[in-house]
Amino acid sequence: MTEPPPPPVMPANPPAIVLVRPQLGMNIGAVARAMKNFGFTDLRLIQPRDGWPNPDAGPSAAGADDVIEQARVFDSVGDAIADCTLTIGTAMTTRDMVRRVTSPAGAVAEMQALPERSALLFGPERTGLVRDDLLHCHAICTIPSNPDFGSLNLAQAVAVLGYAWVIGHDAPPASWLVNHDGPAAQAELAGLIAAIEQRLEANSWFNPAPGLRDTATRMLRNLITRPGFTTAEVQFLRGVVRGLSEPRRPQG
Amino acid sequence: MTEPPPPPVMPANPPAIVLVRPQLGMNIGAVARAMKNFGFTDLRLIQPRDGWPNPDAGPSAAGADDVIEQARVFDSVGDAIADCTLTIGTAMTTRDMVRRVTSPAGAVAEMQALPERSALLFGPERTGLVRDDLLHCHAICTIPSNPDFGSLNLAQAVAVLGYAWVIGHDAPPASWLVNHDGPAAQAELAGLIAAIEQRLEANSWFNPAPGLRDTATRMLRNLITRPGFTTAEVQFLRGVVRGLSEPRRPQG
Repeated sequence: MTEPPPPPVMPANPPAIVLVRPQLGMNIGAVARAMKNFGFTDLRLIQPRDGWPNPDAGPSAAGADDVIEQARVFDSVGDAIADCTLTIGTAMTTRDMVRRVTSPAGAVAEMQALPERSALLFGPERTGLVRDDLLHCHAICTIPSNPDFGSLNLAQAVAVLGYAWVIGHDAPPASWLVNHDGPAAQAELAGLIAAIEQRLEANSWFNPAPGLRDTATRMLRNLITRPGFTTAEVQFLRGVVRGLSEPRRPQG
Repeated sequence: MTEPPPPPVMPANPPAIVLVRPQLGMNIGAVARAMKNFGFTDLRLIQPRDGWPNPDAGPSAAGADDVIEQARVFDSVGDAIADCTLTIGTAMTTRDMVRRVTSPAGAVAEMQALPERSALLFGPERTGLVRDDLLHCHAICTIPSNPDFGSLNLAQAVAVLGYAWVIGHDAPPASWLVNHDGPAAQAELAGLIAAIEQRLEANSWFNPAPGLRDTATRMLRNLITRPGFTTAEVQFLRGVVRGLSEPRRPQG
């Protein structure tokens, strides 16, 4: 007698699933179901359009009530991923950003190589992630699909990544950053950006044009999120920022 | 300047997507969208619960109107897959059948190695495919998922197979039947089964017990669907059936 293949082992340390400005409660429920199908548990909602909890989520969750009940709501992408050291956003294009692009298999391989918490970002149903959301992401994951009809349903996109997560757990990433220190959490990057801005503010650097500050924030977020800085590197850069803006105090 | 990766090439000759007794029009629409996302076009519906066309399908199709409009309705699994030479059903278990089990990647690899039309069967939302449906399938495809929460939403299951279809097109199947003749279409297998039953009927073989005929049909379908017979083999077996039930006529 030949038994069926053994049930799959759900890989450890699944990423947080972060829904940015989701619109329909029904879709949030369907996401919860897909998450539980593939061993994800940590659902984070950023500004859900119709508030939270949302009674429309229950029926489509189809029993994934624990995922719904444990979902957390955040005001901003930065808050939602503050504890994550790797954030990958799903999008069909890079929206003209200089940003690394990866496949679902590539994304999960990177996440499975990390002992820290990672995050997968999914945008609103109508628009997907916008440029300001993607600035928080270390990489962009593009699901290969019909070039003439590429926009996936939100929960179906989560299901595809979930499937990639479950089947991908034996594959090493195609390349990775050797990092003896440990990658910085997103909150540390946000702290560095804030420190730079604070110094620039103090030096009246933003004064010439009112929109300059927002543009600068985006540029800084883009440049500082991309390299995959370690905690020690972020500390070093904070020292550099101080060093650029004030004289070094004498030692001892 | 580094360009983004080129858009994926949709593999040729995608399988028919066969929904067996689908319940909700909304889900049929969501299936159509997922199909178009991954280059599938041939939607076949067996006894849709709420009839067809169904106005609930349009909104969730989200623009995959051509898939919806070209969908065809059938009365039975046998009718729906009559022209297909490889039929794979998606299910979480084999329901105690002796049947080959494959993964999504394995299923698409087999389909991509075939020049003929293949079919992927998906069961009703509430129950999935039942044993009588699976008897028509050469193999059962199980999506690896959480052993404690494995039931996928219908359209999400289609999306997972669609994703596997698009990423799998360079991988050869793990094993395949070398077949210089060409696999028999499902209608040829059905013809063989009918021929056997007709001879058994003529010999009053079913008379002892009223339920015997249904049981025998299932057994025959199971045994005759599994091996992957070629057209020539089916012709040979029809000759054998004749030979068992009537004297050979003299040659010439």
